Formats: sequence, structure tokens, C-alpha cells
Amino acid sequence: MTTRTTPVSLRWQGGSDGTLEILDQTLLPGRLEYRECRDVETVIEAIKMLRVRGAPAIGIAGAYGMVVAAGESERAGHLPDKARPHVRARAEELATARPTAVNLRWAVDRCVGVIDRLPAATSAADLAGALLAEARAIHDEDRNLCAAIGRHGLAVLPEGNILTHCNTGALATGGAGTALGVITAAWDSGRRFTVYADETRPLFQGSRLTAWELVQRGIPVTVLVDAAAGHLLSTGRIAAVIVGADRITACGDTANKIGTYGLALLAAAHGVPFFVAAPSSTFDLTLDSGAEIPIEERGAAEVLVPLGVSAAPAGAGAYNPAFDVTPARLIRGIITEKGVATPVSRETIQKIGMGANFR
Amino acid sequence: MTTRTTPVSLRWQGGSDGTLEILDQTLLPGRLEYRECRDVETVIEAIKMLRVRGAPAIGIAGAYGMVVAAGESERAGHLPDKARPHVRARAEELATARPTAVNLRWAVDRCVGVIDRLPAATSAADLAGALLAEARAIHDEDRNLCAAIGRHGLAVLPEGNILTHCNTGALATGGAGTALGVITAAWDSGRRFTVYADETRPLFQGSRLTAWELVQRGIPVTVLVDAAAGHLLSTGRIAAVIVGADRITACGDTANKIGTYGLALLAAAHGVPFFVAAPSSTFDLTLDSGAEIPIEERGAAEVLVPLGVSAAPAGAGAYNPAFDVTPARLIRGIITEKGVATPVSRETIQKIGMGANFR
Repeated sequence: MTTRTTPVSLRWQGGSDGTLEILDQTLLPGRLEYRECRDVETVIEAIKMLRVRGAPAIGIAGAYGMVVAAGESERAGHLPDKARPHVRARAEELATARPTAVNLRWAVDRCVGVIDRLPAATSAADLAGALLAEARAIHDEDRNLCAAIGRHGLAVLPEGNILTHCNTGALATGGAGTALGVITAAWDSGRRFTVYADETRPLFQGSRLTAWELVQRGIPVTVLVDAAAGHLLSTGRIAAVIVGADRITACGDTANKIGTYGLALLAAAHGVPFFVAAPSSTFDLTLDSGAEIPIEERGAAEVLVPLGVSAAPAGAGAYNPAFDVTPARLIRGIITEKGVATPVSRETIQKIGMGANFR
Repeated sequence: MTTRTTPVSLRWQGGSDGTLEILDQTLLPGRLEYRECRDVETVIEAIKMLRVRGAPAIGIAGAYGMVVAAGESERAGHLPDKARPHVRARAEELATARPTAVNLRWAVDRCVGVIDRLPAATSAADLAGALLAEARAIHDEDRNLCAAIGRHGLAVLPEGNILTHCNTGALATGGAGTALGVITAAWDSGRRFTVYADETRPLFQGSRLTAWELVQRGIPVTVLVDAAAGHLLSTGRIAAVIVGADRITACGDTANKIGTYGLALLAAAHGVPFFVAAPSSTFDLTLDSGAEIPIEERGAAEVLVPLGVSAAPAGAGAYNPAFDVTPARLIRGIITEKGVATPVSRETIQKIGMGANFR
């Protein structure tokens, strides 16, 4: 077994006046480059352009983005009465950089809660210090959440080959990953299997990122186009499908990367168990059903100009929803750091204590 | 309405000593170039590399390929006792250039039947002449079949927006197309709608070819990644899904471009009617169920190196089935030149006379 590990998706360099460095995932697997973020615009740009992506990782980026916001105030010489409103305004910009994943809002709100508890006279530098401590806590917690998700997932994941969609590994989180964390936990426990990775159009997170993480780990990976999942499942060579999540409602309806819904339907048609793995911060108990989840629509170029090469004639339009919603009834179990909700229902979700740490 | 039409997918230039010209669809929509085929190797290469693709069009290419084979004998100075075995050997190479679409075998076998009926002393030049007449007949017939499929399809296609997969238009046939022929017939009848075109990975026939044909015709087209079809169907904006076919068994199970099966399942889940449109030469009544259809697996580069750009790390494998099988129960109707088999069953397929002109 190789001991190589995947580079971290983001890291904080220095003290509270330091710099957020975000691994530019749009350049993978060809180039490994970190982007320095000294202002909030750069953090937001990195989130919007998917240089950092994956619901847990953008939550962590949002938290560190709050430290960057306080640093802006400090460098601008803001007095306390100006620093706090500045950071709060930046919080709103950060929290709305992408609409579907709820972890971003959750992490930013947690940071806002920290500064709200500090005295009015707190300096910008001290805000930055308190926010860095909170962002580091969120980052560290996510590492532990991933490990716990891996342990719980291992208990329910069948042995055999696994099919996954998008990227849910170290690049998508602050730790070993969610769905991919379960997969690597299974591998580390001694199981042997092949991971089938949907390429995940439009942005190829499966072929560019998941395959890259697995090759680094020495785990066999086979890439397929998203549309080949049905035929693959029909061959009987897949024991389970496991994916991540961007938002999960009170009833278990789950928003995740576009294509997840069709995959869940295909898994159900072939009697293959379909699992979702996510930290509890992915639950949004303010929403009852999946119909209420806002679905981000992104630009046409991602569809019409794959990897920078034009694939369509002038005059063609594009439809580019970034997520879809998988109804709870198609999900065998939702694996969280607190346990596994199975079968998926309001009751099993409440029972494992979801929402306890939400807002 | 624009009157522009799509360039033909292939054409014969000159007499029986002439040349087959195949539109190189791998260069579309960027470049419009015909490739001259003076020997059978070039025809087979064009079929294998998908320069010409679409079940009806490769059937026609196979038929003209037989004329090319006779031309080889003529130029080589073969006497009748050598010319006929040469052409028959070439027939086998042509018929097996791709395994899934049955129209190729059907067209080549028809041409073999023509030479089998000629006297043993027939010269290579006369074989070429007879084969050219047969190939032209197959080509002309396909044009008429497309028109008839369009008429029959119009009678069952609901009004509203249409979702389609891969390319089934003029580029895939000798006429207006199969599924796309029904769509253009609906447009020409005065209906107004948007065509949603799955991009159709790995080779982007939807964005490169279908969108291009529709833009040429002035019909609104919106491209989506294959994995977005589920979300699109969940929005309720699609009235029907219609696709082509590469092989249809006696019970109606249908092999078509990879992704068709998942699309049919999604359509069924949303109560959206799912139609297949194909000429009767697509039926293979020697096969009972879809499990018997050979599924072509193609090379890894189509998956890992989309449009010539590497999207995956070294060390990743690829799984690349070119087709999948949609069970008859998911198909609302099979539209042929002879009528529509609906509901799809052995009985309705027999009733409209499928197989009457097959082998």
C-alpha cells in the first residue's frame, strides 16, 4: 500500500494576519498550484470558479474567508465601530457565493456568532484572532468528522466494487473525505476492490479529481462517462453506489452534483444500495422537502466548451443546473459522523441527532 | 423558417469506377470535409473511427463500400474467378467493422445477395455496376424511410419540448433522420418547441452534430450534459423523449447509444413518453432479448482524453461501452417506416410487419 496522501484543498499560512492558500482544483490533475487569498474578492472568486469545491471544503474556505475579511479591516486601519460591520457585510458576500451547499452558510454563520459574542470595542486584529481560532476549529472538526464518517460507513458498505460520482475526497473536505472517505476507510481496512468513478460532466471532477486522489492512494480506479453508469450497473459488477451531498432536508431528500438523481434511480432499478455520506452540517432542517432546495444554474461555457475546446455550433443554447435532488426513498442510508440514518426517514434522521449542531 | 439543409453524410461521385466520399463527422462542427474512399481500408477506417456513424448511415457506407471493393478488383485486373471471392471477403470485413448496429450487416448482406445472383463469368466492372445500383437503391430507400418515419412519428409525438440523445438526423442516415427526422417533421408541420439535446459523451454527437443540424435548420436547440436529463425531466418542461436505435430485438429491447437506458428510466419515472424511431432494417428478429445484443466496448482515450485534452491522471483505467440496452417496457412506441409499434410487444412488432424485409 502506498503511503502517499492527497495535498490539502486549502491551508492557512501564518498568524491571524496571515494568508489563506487555496489549491486551484481547476488546474488538476495537470498542475498543483495554490492561490494566495489576501482579500475576500479572491476567496469568493475561488469559490465561484470552483477552484475550491465540495460542500465541506467551501464551508472551511468561507470560515477562513472571515479571517481574511478581518485582515482587510486591520490593514485598512478600521476602528472597532467600522471593523465589525465590514466583516459582517463580507460574511453575507461569502455565504452567498454559491447557493446550493448549506455548509458554506453554516460555517460563515458560526463565525459571525463568534464576533457577535465579543465586546463592541474589540479591535480588527482581535476579531481576526478570534475568527482564525474558529476557522481552525471548523477545519479540525471536519477532519474528525471525515474519520467518523469513514468508520460509520465501513459498517454498512457492502464488500465489492464501488461506483461514485463527482469528488468527495480530501479535495472536497478538510480531511479524508465523505463518500471517498468511506471508500478509503474500506481500502485501509484491508478490503480490495475497484472504484468506478463517473467522470462527472460538466467539470470532470470524477476523472480530474477523484481518479487523481485514488491513483495517489494506490487504489484501482476506472473512469466512465456519466451515461455509462446504467450499463455498468446492469453487468452486476457494482456492490454499492456512494456519493456526497450539498444539502439534505429534514425528510432526507438530498441535493448533490448533477447526475446523482439519475444514478440513484439506476441503482434502485438494479437493487444496488445507494448511500449518501455527509457531515451533519449538510442537513438543512429548515427545509422540509427537496423541492425547496435552490438549484444553482451555471454558465453555458461549462457545457458548450468542455476543457476549453468548443464542442457546439454558434447558436446553440445550454442548460446547466449544477445540482439535482435525489428523493429520500432512493437512498439506502445517510452516513454521518453521528451514525447512519437507515432507512432514510424523518424519524431516523432525528434519532441520530441531526440538526443538533445546526444553527 | 430557414431553408438551409444539412450536408449529406456520404455521397457517391462518378460511375461504378467512381469514389465514395464520406463527410468526416469527427471534424464537425468546426470543419466540413469529405474524405475520399478509393479502397475498402479507408471505408472501414471511417466506420471504425466514427467519421461516418449512425446505424442507417453506416449501412449505406457498407453498401457503397462493396462498390469500392469491386473497384479494387477491377483496378487489380482480377478475372471473374478472382473478383467475386475478393468482393465477398471484403464484405465480411465491412460487415464486422462495428458490432452493435445491425443495419451494417443487413446492407452488406443485401449487396452480397446481388452478386450471388449474377452469372459466374461476370466481370469485376459489371459487379461494380450492379453493386452501385444496389447501394444507390439502399441510399434512396433510406431517404424514403426517413420521410415515412417522420410522418408516422408526427402522429404519436406529443406537442411541446423534446429531449433527444446522440445524433439521429441527416448525418446519421441517408435522409432527414430517424428520431431527428420526426422532430424536424414536427417543426415543418408548424409546431414550435425547443429541442433539448444531450451532449452525448464520450463523443459529443449531441452538441457537435445534433445541435449543428438544428441550428442549420433554424430550430431552437439547448444542449445539456447527459447527467442533467433527470433534473430537466423533473422540471416538467419536456413533453417527450425520442431517440434512434442500433439494434432492436423481437421483443422490442433496443440497443442504442450509451446513456439511452438511463434516460428511458428517468422518462418513465416522470411519466414522460419515451419513443424509439428506426427503419425496419434495425430489427434483428434472430435475437429474442436485449441480453443477446453484442455491446461494443471502445478505447480508453474517448473517456480519458475528451476532445484531445487529457482529463485524467496517468494510472486511471477507463470503461467505455458504446451502447446500452433499453428494455421494451420502458418504450412507449417504436416508430418505423411501416407504422408505430405501441405498446411495444412481440405482437405489435409482428403486426406492423417488422422483419418482412429483414434477411
